[in-house]
Parts: sequence; structure tokens; C-alpha cells
Amino acid sequence: MHVYIINGPNLNLLGTREVDIYGLCSFDTFLTKLKERFPDVTFSSFQSNVEGELINTLHEAARIADGIILNGAAYTHTSIALGDAVAAIAIPVVEIHISNIYSRETFRKNSYTAPHCAGVITGFGMEGYALAVQYLVQKNHPV
Amino acid sequence: MHVYIINGPNLNLLGTREVDIYGLCSFDTFLTKLKERFPDVTFSSFQSNVEGELINTLHEAARIADGIILNGAAYTHTSIALGDAVAAIAIPVVEIHISNIYSRETFRKNSYTAPHCAGVITGFGMEGYALAVQYLVQKNHPV
Amino acid sequence: MHVYIINGPNLNLLGTREVDIYGLCSFDTFLTKLKERFPDVTFSSFQSNVEGELINTLHEAARIADGIILNGAAYTHTSIALGDAVAAIAIPVVEIHISNIYSRETFRKNSYTAPHCAGVITGFGMEGYALAVQYLVQKNHPV
Amino acid sequence: MHVYIINGPNLNLLGTREVDIYGLCSFDTFLTKLKERFPDVTFSSFQSNVEGELINTLHEAARIADGIILNGAAYTHTSIALGDAVAAIAIPVVEIHISNIYSRETFRKNSYTAPHCAGVITGFGMEGYALAVQYLVQKNHPV
Amino acid sequence: MHVYIINGPNLNLLGTREVDIYGLCSFDTFLTKLKERFPDVTFSSFQSNVEGELINTLHEAARIADGIILNGAAYTHTSIALGDAVAAIAIPVVEIHISNIYSRETFRKNSYTAPHCAGVITGFGMEGYALAVQYLVQKNHPV
Amino acid sequence: MHVYIINGPNLNLLGTREVDIYGLCSFDTFLTKLKERFPDVTFSSFQSNVEGELINTLHEAARIADGIILNGAAYTHTSIALGDAVAAIAIPVVEIHISNIYSRETFRKNSYTAPHCAGVITGFGMEGYALAVQYLVQKNHPV
Amino acid sequence: MHVYIINGPNLNLLGTREVDIYGLCSFDTFLTKLKERFPDVTFSSFQSNVEGELINTLHEAARIADGIILNGAAYTHTSIALGDAVAAIAIPVVEIHISNIYSRETFRKNSYTAPHCAGVITGFGMEGYALAVQYLVQKNHPV
Amino acid sequence: MHVYIINGPNLNLLGTREVDIYGLCSFDTFLTKLKERFPDVTFSSFQSNVEGELINTLHEAARIADGIILNGAAYTHTSIALGDAVAAIAIPVVEIHISNIYSRETFRKNSYTAPHCAGVITGFGMEGYALAVQYLVQKNHPV
Amino acid sequence: MHVYIINGPNLNLLGTREVDIYGLCSFDTFLTKLKERFPDVTFSSFQSNVEGELINTLHEAARIADGIILNGAAYTHTSIALGDAVAAIAIPVVEIHISNIYSRETFRKNSYTAPHCAGVITGFGMEGYALAVQYLVQKNHPV
Amino acid sequence: MHVYIINGPNLNLLGTREVDIYGLCSFDTFLTKLKERFPDVTFSSFQSNVEGELINTLHEAARIADGIILNGAAYTHTSIALGDAVAAIAIPVVEIHISNIYSRETFRKNSYTAPHCAGVITGFGMEGYALAVQYLVQKNHPV
Amino acid sequence: MHVYIINGPNLNLLGTREVDIYGLCSFDTFLTKLKERFPDVTFSSFQSNVEGELINTLHEAARIADGIILNGAAYTHTSIALGDAVAAIAIPVVEIHISNIYSRETFRKNSYTAPHCAGVITGFGMEGYALAVQYLVQKNHPV
Amino acid sequence: MHVYIINGPNLNLLGTREVDIYGLCSFDTFLTKLKERFPDVTFSSFQSNVEGELINTLHEAARIADGIILNGAAYTHTSIALGDAVAAIAIPVVEIHISNIYSRETFRKNSYTAPHCAGVITGFGMEGYALAVQYLVQKNHPV
Repeated sequence: MHVYIINGPNLNLLGTREVDIYGLCSFDTFLTKLKERFPDVTFSSFQSNVEGELINTLHEAARIADGIILNGAAYTHTSIALGDAVAAIAIPVVEIHISNIYSRETFRKNSYTAPHCAGVITGFGMEGYALAVQYLVQKNHPV
Repeated sequence: MHVYIINGPNLNLLGTREVDIYGLCSFDTFLTKLKERFPDVTFSSFQSNVEGELINTLHEAARIADGIILNGAAYTHTSIALGDAVAAIAIPVVEIHISNIYSRETFRKNSYTAPHCAGVITGFGMEGYALAVQYLVQKNHPV
Repeated sequence: MHVYIINGPNLNLLGTREVDIYGLCSFDTFLTKLKERFPDVTFSSFQSNVEGELINTLHEAARIADGIILNGAAYTHTSIALGDAVAAIAIPVVEIHISNIYSRETFRKNSYTAPHCAGVITGFGMEGYALAVQYLVQKNHPV
Repeated sequence: MHVYIINGPNLNLLGTREVDIYGLCSFDTFLTKLKERFPDVTFSSFQSNVEGELINTLHEAARIADGIILNGAAYTHTSIALGDAVAAIAIPVVEIHISNIYSRETFRKNSYTAPHCAGVITGFGMEGYALAVQYLVQKNHPV
Repeated sequence: MHVYIINGPNLNLLGTREVDIYGLCSFDTFLTKLKERFPDVTFSSFQSNVEGELINTLHEAARIADGIILNGAAYTHTSIALGDAVAAIAIPVVEIHISNIYSRETFRKNSYTAPHCAGVITGFGMEGYALAVQYLVQKNHPV
Repeated sequence: MHVYIINGPNLNLLGTREVDIYGLCSFDTFLTKLKERFPDVTFSSFQSNVEGELINTLHEAARIADGIILNGAAYTHTSIALGDAVAAIAIPVVEIHISNIYSRETFRKNSYTAPHCAGVITGFGMEGYALAVQYLVQKNHPV
Repeated sequence: MHVYIINGPNLNLLGTREVDIYGLCSFDTFLTKLKERFPDVTFSSFQSNVEGELINTLHEAARIADGIILNGAAYTHTSIALGDAVAAIAIPVVEIHISNIYSRETFRKNSYTAPHCAGVITGFGMEGYALAVQYLVQKNHPV
Repeated sequence: MHVYIINGPNLNLLGTREVDIYGLCSFDTFLTKLKERFPDVTFSSFQSNVEGELINTLHEAARIADGIILNGAAYTHTSIALGDAVAAIAIPVVEIHISNIYSRETFRKNSYTAPHCAGVITGFGMEGYALAVQYLVQKNHPV
Repeated sequence: MHVYIINGPNLNLLGTREVDIYGLCSFDTFLTKLKERFPDVTFSSFQSNVEGELINTLHEAARIADGIILNGAAYTHTSIALGDAVAAIAIPVVEIHISNIYSRETFRKNSYTAPHCAGVITGFGMEGYALAVQYLVQKNHPV
Repeated sequence: MHVYIINGPNLNLLGTREVDIYGLCSFDTFLTKLKERFPDVTFSSFQSNVEGELINTLHEAARIADGIILNGAAYTHTSIALGDAVAAIAIPVVEIHISNIYSRETFRKNSYTAPHCAGVITGFGMEGYALAVQYLVQKNHPV
Repeated sequence: MHVYIINGPNLNLLGTREVDIYGLCSFDTFLTKLKERFPDVTFSSFQSNVEGELINTLHEAARIADGIILNGAAYTHTSIALGDAVAAIAIPVVEIHISNIYSRETFRKNSYTAPHCAGVITGFGMEGYALAVQYLVQKNHPV
Repeated sequence: MHVYIINGPNLNLLGTREVDIYGLCSFDTFLTKLKERFPDVTFSSFQSNVEGELINTLHEAARIADGIILNGAAYTHTSIALGDAVAAIAIPVVEIHISNIYSRETFRKNSYTAPHCAGVITGFGMEGYALAVQYLVQKNHPV
């Protein structure tokens, strides 16, 4: 099974800044651990601060992967274009947020991508990625 | 580890009505399977259509369990009292929704409980409960 | 034909308080007269100030009756849970309001149950119940 | 007893278009049946797509009839002028809507006429007219 | 000087209904007195409940009169079309309201015609027409 | 092919007033030129300031024409009734606006008719009518 | 008859600034002319930029005058306190605005004083004061 | 004199949780002290997390007590039904809030019960109950 | 103990106008009685219709008194400046309102001062001042 | 004549996905046909999912083309930056939308670019591009 | 060059209260330093808690100074009257705020004065005054 | 000292278009002059129309500079991502706007970056950049 993780704006800073919110672990370190926990899954990952490159990558991932994990970060709340891109995708997309967006600013309540996703996982820190993988694996091979 | 599942209004109908949204499986049948998948976890479960009984049970669960899975259903969106109850709880509470509330009516976007929860899992069907258990187990014994 | 009348919060006060709005007649007295006017109809009735008990009774009525008359009173305007309960019911539900809610406070304009009802009857006083029965009878045996 | 039925915009199309919503029966055919069901009632009826002609007819009906049944259709939601006209009328006016306006667009929730009507009947199809007549008759000769 | 008075919906009822708000005097009786008070002014007057006829008359009055007094009544608050018609007129238009619209429903606060009028006179009863004439006369022959 | 052009309130003033916005050309003069440019098309045209007459004409045009060009002018933004009329029509309706309504008042942003039209053409001046005809012709005989 | 004119903030600048809106005439010059036009009326006048002094003067004027003309200027739109002061006054208060506030910023649409006034005169320039006097005189000695 | 204290959702947790907001004192301990301070007053008290039971108790208290102290907690802000119940009560009801709801979330600004209460006491901690008793006593025996 | 009472706009009219709302008692008469009921308390009092003088007095009272009772009247709802002044004060400020502001206009729901006060007392008439004193005394010498 | 077509996010998917909305034809195929229909026009075209690249291209097109056809897709509704770019352009820009955005989500009603465009063409499918070319050609060489 | 600094409500407390936000320096001490930094500038300064006195001083400063620095404090957000006063001034007015109003309450986002100012300087503490002087000096003698 | 100037969308057009708003000076020419005025400051500058590239540059500038001047242009009002980037930066960021955004469209009032900046300078034209440098220099070496 092939899972494509797409991370949005400012997530390149993971592990180096605002560590009280996002933790001390860089995404690369985390990804290495994630691969160990799911040895049967092939992972691709991509990060960009450019909205359009996230859309490009969603288009590409839809062609080559079996499932997508999308952390659109701030674009989640403002990008109809990202939402349109997800709406055009046939494979399951799981939306995740590291922090609990419900206990932050009001403008983080809206999600343009969520209505078109299989589901949303919010607030569990980096473990949210693992839960998303868990879901995609389970969906492929139901217990 | 002791996990307490609390289900809100109309969830007693699971498996018998609106099966296109909620599936054909009753919650009891599902719970039996869930226990098999997590043999090391002790489960309690409670369902009520009465808002105040859900609050009572949250108070009780906070005393005896290690984690709570709360599907507040419709009360999620209207009950400040339920939110206050979750805010008063020290153990982790995971909010789950079976359907993707982002693709339903606008009035389902608000959650009075989510700001006080560890996280929220939305839209993965009954599998959401399993992901919530997965999170609580992982939190107790991190990989 | 079996019609189940479900009355919501504060309607136990009918006939004893705010008689300028709701009249001097208690619901029991009214129900006796209603039965005389519709001798071929079997009536059940239930009143509660507890939102969840109204939901419980809706679930039950959906199993045993041919039609439901629901006066959700104040819960009409606030209870998504009541609305979800009506949405899960296959037999016709008629929503009624004794007073003309359009000429009262703005917050009485919204109804979470109405979109899932066969229809709504508002403002005709106790006679509204009779019109609702009339409709259910007519629907069973169209002229 | 004299009942005046006033139908608003697009209701001249009844029975010929959008039959899934409004049915196959023209209003004239329906009115014939209605007269048979209420042989003691004298009926007048009027339809116009012109807002001001509906107001003219309301003024006239207030002089010659004992009760008015008003289906203001789309003007219900936009016409303060129609509401002012009803407010100036002493005999009972019953507002009816054929379809369930609560399950349609949000802009159909508002009614400028309802606050000044005896009551509102919504969503019961053509049978709503019969219920309105039933109410007016009952009001004249209470059981 | 030629002044054209245009009255909107329900103003044909002046003097016969809602006399507590609008007084006992019909508009014709009032107009007779008005002519006596302003013997040097030629008056035309028109009343209609049909929005479009008011627009037609505004177009015509703009061609033949020196000033217009417009009591748009309820259409004042809803008719962009009436506002567009006034905007297209070169001679001064005075908007008047008999009752004090500021102490009535909120929806009477908006006026689509006022931004395009010379001024607005509100709440002085029938005397408002006289003040409007006074203004138009004074504008023609300033003191 | 038969195209019916329906023009709403104040458009009878075309060419004589507010020429900076709408130009110096009357609609009749323009229609003559339009007929020359589309010799194979039969044209009907109608203008009224009365909302209900526009609805009447839409009903009639739906019976006799192959396509409708509707410039609802100010009624576009306020008339649910006009929107309902268009919704009941099976042949294609093209909505046009002479001026660019996006650069005018906010209340011109809403259109009750547009959701039920084939499409909308805004801001190209009188040439918008020609584009609408072009579309209807092309739809009949695709290139 | 004694008329008290109370002018609010920035009206001391009348005649010296923004002459395109408010004209070249100072209020004192204007008042001299006004007294000539109404020789039977005793006038008091007061201007202040201090909201509380306007309230003080309203209290005093209510004791000694027969009518008040209030140009609250910007405080009209923000001062509940000014509105409360007018509400406490038994003699007629006429609200006036020199410019047409309907064609200016949206925040000038609200008036806290208007609901408690006899009426409102807007947009006729300085002549609005004369119309207000005219009304108060006429009210005292109706034609 | 008989005073009935009715406490709403989550107030059973007083003294054991969120002690920084609500203090260390349980309601029972507080009530004992309150009785000592007001030896001439008979006290009843009731707490429930169930909205409907609060309504039931309001109905009962209205029959047997001379005054009611209502701390509706979270239901204050959401329950029209509780508001309707208070509106139906003839004896004075005092609304109290332990914390200063004005310095908390915006959704705590609204109160459905307050418009029907004698008055509201907010933010004085447990002392608010004593002030409420003080008021009811004073109202019975004015100084 | 020194308590400073600060009364806002229009409260100088107490006892002479709108006696149905505010009673027949002037504030001076009331204050004499209040002093008798609290002989151990030193009282200062100040009233002004000028917002800025209320701020000045708040600054001064904060230097010389032990507690402040603030009836900001209409400025409560509009004055961020008054709210800023209270926020800068260290001694307890009690906000009071004589009438029940919850049952009046919507614009009286907001309070810029309340978030910075110890608490708020609303709707108990003049007795509210006594309750506020009671609170301040009790706070100094808890039972 | 040189026309520059600029397509926004997700429009690279034209013809391969969501064919029920956008049809089976790729943009390249369509462009070939378009060139055949307008042999006298030189076409440039550009598509990007990156908002800033669309702005870059608008700047460039403004220098080298005679007219621009802009399908901003989702960025139409969110990008003030795109709107600013169009505002800075002197040659005519025609905004087009393939689908009828009026019958889709509410958030597609707003357009930041439309106020600065010559006009807008919405809902005619790919034919909208042809109409836009038609307009630009006609504008260059009026009939 | 003559610069007039006008400070609004509560700014008399600078240096003595809320020193964490506004610092320990009184305005007089600061002004002394400012004069040293700009020896070629003549300074006047004024502070009042009375809105109307600020307006009076703006009128006066407009006559005698070359530039105005206005820290309207809380009145910035509520005073249309202050905004009108600035609009009437021909010399440049610079609006400053000591704290960053964007990171405080939402109601501090609006400014009635800013649209009429040369510019706004926000959040740089007392240094903001120096920047404002810098701008006014530079404007007089551009580099 | 090292200052990094980051300019957002459409600012590459400075000096060539909309010269009435932004002046005739290109940014490069301006920067040359700015360097002359601040010879002790090292300047970097970057402009992009791509939101993500601005974020990238903010990340980089935070590593190498002592202060940042950010003119986010249109992205200021729409980009939560840009705001998140600024929030993650430890060195001072000064937000500037060339034009007075308070006197332009309403949608320019919101700033996602301002709450995380040291301060905001608005409306002083290109001189705003100089003031921002002035502030950063002064902050490093206070007078």
C-alpha cells in the first residue's frame, strides 16, 4: 500500500520552532519512526509553502498512491482551490491537524477540504499521522 | 486500561435506521468486535438521549476510567453544558463523529466539546471508535 | 388508525397558567373532546419537560403508531437532537404550535424538526391538534 | 360562510409544471372537489402574479368574505406590502404553503404575512387548503 | 408650480382603517385642504398597490412636474426598482412617511429610494405632505 | 429559431436617461440592429416595470419560444417570484445585465434568477444581448 | 411659542468648512434669517461638541420650551444616552440632519434618538430647520 | 419565608473541581452557612444536570415557595424552554451566576431566563446567593 | 469603609421622570436612607451626563475609596473608554442597573465595563445599590 | 488581434475528471477548435495552480495582448491579490466561469476580480470562452 | 514647525498604571525627551477624557499648528464625531496607538478617524509619537 | 544592523502603474535613496507575487536578519499562512502599507499578520518604509 503525506505551509519548521505546540521532533525524524511502525506501507511525502504546489502534488498523488494524508495547515481554512483539488480525487484523503484547531482562533474552524475528505483527525499531535495511516490500512484490509 | 464510551442522542438507533449513513451494525455488535481487537482494554459504554444523563456519566467516567470516547451526536453542537462537563475532566476525552459533519448542515460545524478534548476524529464511520481507542492506548504506552 | 401526540416542555401547564395565550382548557380535557370528534382514531399521548424523553418517545411512537403529532414547544427551536430523531422516522410527523410563533420572539422562527415533518400547523390554538388529526386521517383515506 | 382563496405568483402553473412538487391537479379541478367537501361554504378565488393585485384583492375580500386563505407563494418572503395589507384586515386570514418551506432554501423561512395571520399551514400539499377551510368553518361554529 | 404626489401600497385605506396610526382623514379630503393651503401650486396625485405602476408614474411625473412627493410605503424598504427609478429622475423628489418608521419594525429602517431623494420627512403624520410641499415651493422661490 | 427578450424595470428609459451608464441607443433601435446581425432568428421582446407582468411573460415565452433572454434589472436582486418562474421553465434562459453589477452596490450581488438560468452575462453593455443570442444559436446548432 | 434648537458636534464649523456639503452660511447668520421668517416664535439655541452638555441642555429645554429641534450630528448614530434623554422628554422633539444621511456611510443609518422623536427631517440643508419650526408651529395651531 | 434554590448543570462539582474558578467549598457546606446567616428563611435546594428536571422543579417551586434563586449555569444561554418556564412563574425569580460571565466566552452573554427574572446577580462568587436571599427578604419586608 | 457611587447619564432625572420605570424617589432621598442602613460606611456620590467626567471621577475614586458602585447607564453599552477606565482600577467596582436591561432593547445587552468589574447587579430597582454595598462590606469583613 | 487566456487552479484536469460538470474535452483540444472558429485571432494560453504565477502572467499579458480571458476558478472567490492585479491592467479582461457558480456553494458568489473586469460570463460551459473571444473581437471592430 | 499632540481618554494614567502595557514613563517626562530629539519643532499637547474637548482641541489645533498627532485611545473605535472632526481638518493628522490594537479585543479593530488621517502608526509604544513627528517633519522638508 | 524588506503581490508594478496611488518611483530607485539615508544599515529586499515564496523568505530572513519590514499587500488580508509564518518569527517584524487601507474597501481592514508584528505603519506612502527602518534602528540603539 502506498500512502502520500502532503504537508502545507510552515510545517517545514516542525521541531525547530513553537516547540510547545508542535514538539521537538522534525518531520523527517518522525517519518522514519512512522515507517518502522508500518513496514508494509510505502510512504511518499511532500511539503510546500506554496498553495499551488500542494495542488499539483495532490493531482500527482491521486495518480500514484492508494491514500493521501493532507495537513493543509493554514490553507485548510482559506483555500477553496485546495478544496476543489480534493473534490476531484477518487482515492481516500484523510485531513489531519496537529494542534486542536477548535481551541484556537475562530478563523480556524472552517475547512474547505474537509467536506471532500474521508475524515478528519484533529489535535492528537504527530500521532494523528499514525492514526490516519491506521485508518487507510484498515480500509484496505478490514478486520 | 479502562476506556469509557459515551454515546449521545439517537445513537441507540445504530444499525436499524438510516443504514445508508450509519451502517447495518448495531453498537453492541460493534463493541464485541472492538473488544476482540483490543483485548488489553477494559470497556464501559453508555448511551442516552438525555443530555443531563450524558453529563452525569461524564462526571462518573472521569472518576473511574483512564480515557473517554465521546460521541455527543447532536448535543455536540448545542450543549454548552456538555462542553462545561468536558472542561471539568482531567483524563483525556476523544470526541468522535461517525459521519463527516463537514459535509452536512452548517449548524453541525460548531462543537462546544471539542475545545476541551484531546482531539477529534470525524467521518471514518464506526472505525473512528477504533482509532480513538488506538490513540488512548498509544498515549498510555507510547511506541 | 393510531395517532401519537407528543407534547414538549411547559405544556403540562396548559389550562392553569398564561391562560391568555394558551386558554383555560387542560390538555386532558381537550384530549377527551378530541377523541369524541375522531371516534375511529386510537390516541396515545405523552408530555415531558425532558428533551431526551421526547426523543425516546418519538423512537417508540415510530414503531407502534401510524402518525405522530409533535408539539416540541421551546425544544423546536434549539434541539438538533429532536430534529435528528424526526429525520429517522418513516411515518408522517405533523409539527404543531398553539400560538403564532411568527408574532413572538425572533428566536422562535427557526425549527430543527420542521424540515423533516410532513407539515407544520401554527397559531390556531388547540384546534391545531384537530387539524393535524384531520390531515393524518385524510392521508390514510383520501377523499 | 364565504371563504376567499387568494393565490400568489406562479400558482397558475399548478398541475402543469413541477408536478413532482405540486402534483398533477390544476387549481380549478381541486377547487371543484373542495366545494363538494364543503357544500355549506361559498368560495371565491383569485390568482395573480402581480403583487399589487393581490393587495387589491385582499382589500376587497376583507369587505365581502368571512375568512381568507392566502397562499402568497414567493411574495410571502419578500413583500412587506402584502404583510401590511394583511395587518389591516379584521377577518381571519389563514396562510398556507403547499410545499414544506422549511426544507427548501433559507430565504423561504421568513414570512412578512404570518405575524398578522390567524395561523399558518405548511407542507401538506393541496390538502392544506382543506385544512384551512376546516379551521375557518370550525371557528365560525365551534364543536 | 406643479407637484406630483405618488402614494404606494395600502395608502388607499387612509382614513378607513388603522385610524390610530394614520388618522380618520381620507387622502382625498386631505388633498382638498392641502390645495387650499397652497393655492399657487398645481397638484397631481396617484395611488397604486402595484410597484410597477408607481415606477411608471414616477417616469411620467418626471416629465411633467416640477417636484415629486413620494410615499413609497412598504416598497420603500424592499424595492431596488423604485430606487432605480428615483435615481433616474432629475427634478427633486421628497420622500415622506406618515408614521415614525424608526419606532416600528427593524425592516423599515432601510430605504432604497432615500439616497436618491432631495430629502426625507418622517413621522409627522399627514402634515409631512405639507412640509414637503413647503420645501419644494421654498426651493423654487427661496426666501 | 425563436428568441424572446424580456426586459425589466426602468429599461424603458434606455437611450434617454443615464446615458453614461446605458448609452444613447434606445432598445428599439438596438433591436433593429440585432435582427440584422441574426437574420435567421425570430425575435419577440417585452418590457414592463410590473414584476407580475414579467412573470406572466416568462410563462408565455416558455410555451412559444426556443430560448429566453432575461434582463430582470432590479427585480433580479429582490424577486424570489421571478426566480420561481425561471425555475419552472424548461427552455434555456440567459440572464443578462448591461452594466457590471459587481462594481455597483452590494445589494446587486445577489440574483434569485441566476441559479435557474443556463448562464449569466454581465457588464458588456448592449453587446451582452448579442452574446446571449450567440449562445442560444450555438446551443441549437453546435459548431 | 418657544423653540429650542440644539446642535451637536462639529456644527460650530458651519459656514467655514466643508462648504460644499454644509454651505457658506454660519449658524448665527442663518438663525437671524429664521427669526425673521418666524417672528412669533421665541428661539433659544445651543451648540456643543460635548455629548453630556447636549443631554444637560435637552433636560433644561424640556422644562422651558414648547418644542425642541435636535441636530445631534454624529452623536445621533452612537449615543444611546442622547436617545434616553429624548425618551424622557414630554414636549415634541424634531430630529433634523442637514445632509442626506442615507447617501453617506452606512453607519449613519442608525439613529438612537429618532424612535423617541415626533419626526425626522433629513437632507434639505439648512431649510430643514425652517421645516421643523413650521411643524412645531403648525402642531400648536393646526390649520 | 421560603426560598427555593435551583442549581443547573455541573454545579454538583462545586468544591471538587475547577476550584480556581468556583472555590473549594461544596454547595452543601455553603448552604449550611447560608442558613445560619438567614435564620428566618426556610430553604429548599435542588441540583440537576437534566434540563427538564430543572423545569419540573421550577414548576413545583412556583407552587410552594415565596421566591426562587436560579443558577441555570450553561442552560441559561441555550434553553428557551427554561426561559419559558420562568416566564410562567408569578413569584420572583433571581438569576445568579457565580463567575463573571461577561469576562468569559461570547456565547455566555445571552440569557433566555433573565428577561423574565426580577433581576440578575453575576460574578460575586458564592456570595451572590446571599445577595439574592437578601433581595428576596427585603422585597418581602422593605426597610 | 469608603464607597463611591458614580451615576451616569440621565440619572439626575431619577424620581421626577419615567417614574414607572425608575420610581418616585430622587437619588438624594434614596442616598439618605442608604446611609441609615449602612451607618459604618462613608459614602461619596457623583452624577454626570458627560462621559469624560465619569472617567475622571473613576480615576479619582480609585485613589480615595475602598470600593466603587458604577451605574454607567447608557454609556455602559457604548463606552470602551469607560471600560478602559474600570480596567485600570485596582479596588473592586460593582456595576449596577436599576431596570432589567435583559428585557429591554438588544443594544443594552452589551457591557464594556462588566468584564472588568467584580460583578454585576441588574434589575432590582434602587435596592440594587444596597445589594452592591452589602457585597463590598461583606468582601471587607467576610462572615 | 491577440487574446491571452489564463486558467486558474485545477483547470489542468479539464476533460479527465468530473466530466459531468466540465465535460470530456481537454483544454488543448478545445483551444484547437477555438482557433479554427476565430482564425483572425492570435491566442496565448496559460494555466497554473499557483496564484502568484497567475498574477505574473496577468502582468505579462497586459503588456503583450489586446485582451485577456481570465478563468480564475477558485482564486476568483478568495484572492484580493488577483483582483488587485486585474485592477492594474488597462486592456479589457473578461472573467469567465465554466459552471454556473450561482447554483453552487455560497462562497462562490463573491468575486474579487469581477469589479475590475469588462464583464463576466458564467455557466455556459466551454462555450463561455468563445463568447468572451466574440466580445473582444466585437469590441475591436464594432458592427 | 508646530506639532500638536492630542491624547484621549485614560492616557493621563500613562506611567502610573498598567505599566506592563504602557511603560513606566509619564507623558510629560516622555514629551521632554521628545523635544530634545526634535529641537526644531514647537510642541503643544493636550489630554482629556471628554470626547467633546478633544473635538474642540482638534478644531483649535487645525487653526494654529502644522500637523496633529492624535491618540484617540478608546474614542478611536466609537466616535463618529471625532472622525467627522478629523475629516474637517486640512493639515495632516497622524493617528497613533501605543499598544498593538490588532492583538487586543476585536472592537479595537475599527477606527472612525483613520480614514481621514494621513496615516496610522500602531504598536511601537511611546516611540510611535517620535515616528509620527519624524513623518510630519519629513513631509515639510522631504529628503 | 541587517534589515530585510519583503514586498508582496503586485508591488513589482511600483512606479509604472496606478501612479496616482503609489507614485512614480520604482522600488529599486526608492531603495537606493533609503540606503543613503541609513548608511549604517545593511538591506536585503525581496518581492514575489507567490504567497508561498513570501513565507519561504520570511523563514530565511528570520535566520539572517535583525529586523523585517513586511508589506504583504493583498495577502495581508487573506493569508492565515503568512500570519502563521510571522507568528513563528522571533526578530521584530514591522508591517507597512503604502496607501491608507482604512479609506479603501472594507476587506482591507483585516490583517492576519498584524497581531504578530511589533507594529503597523499605514498610509504614509513610500516614507512608511523609512519610518519602519527608523523604528528598527531606534529599537537596537534606543536614544
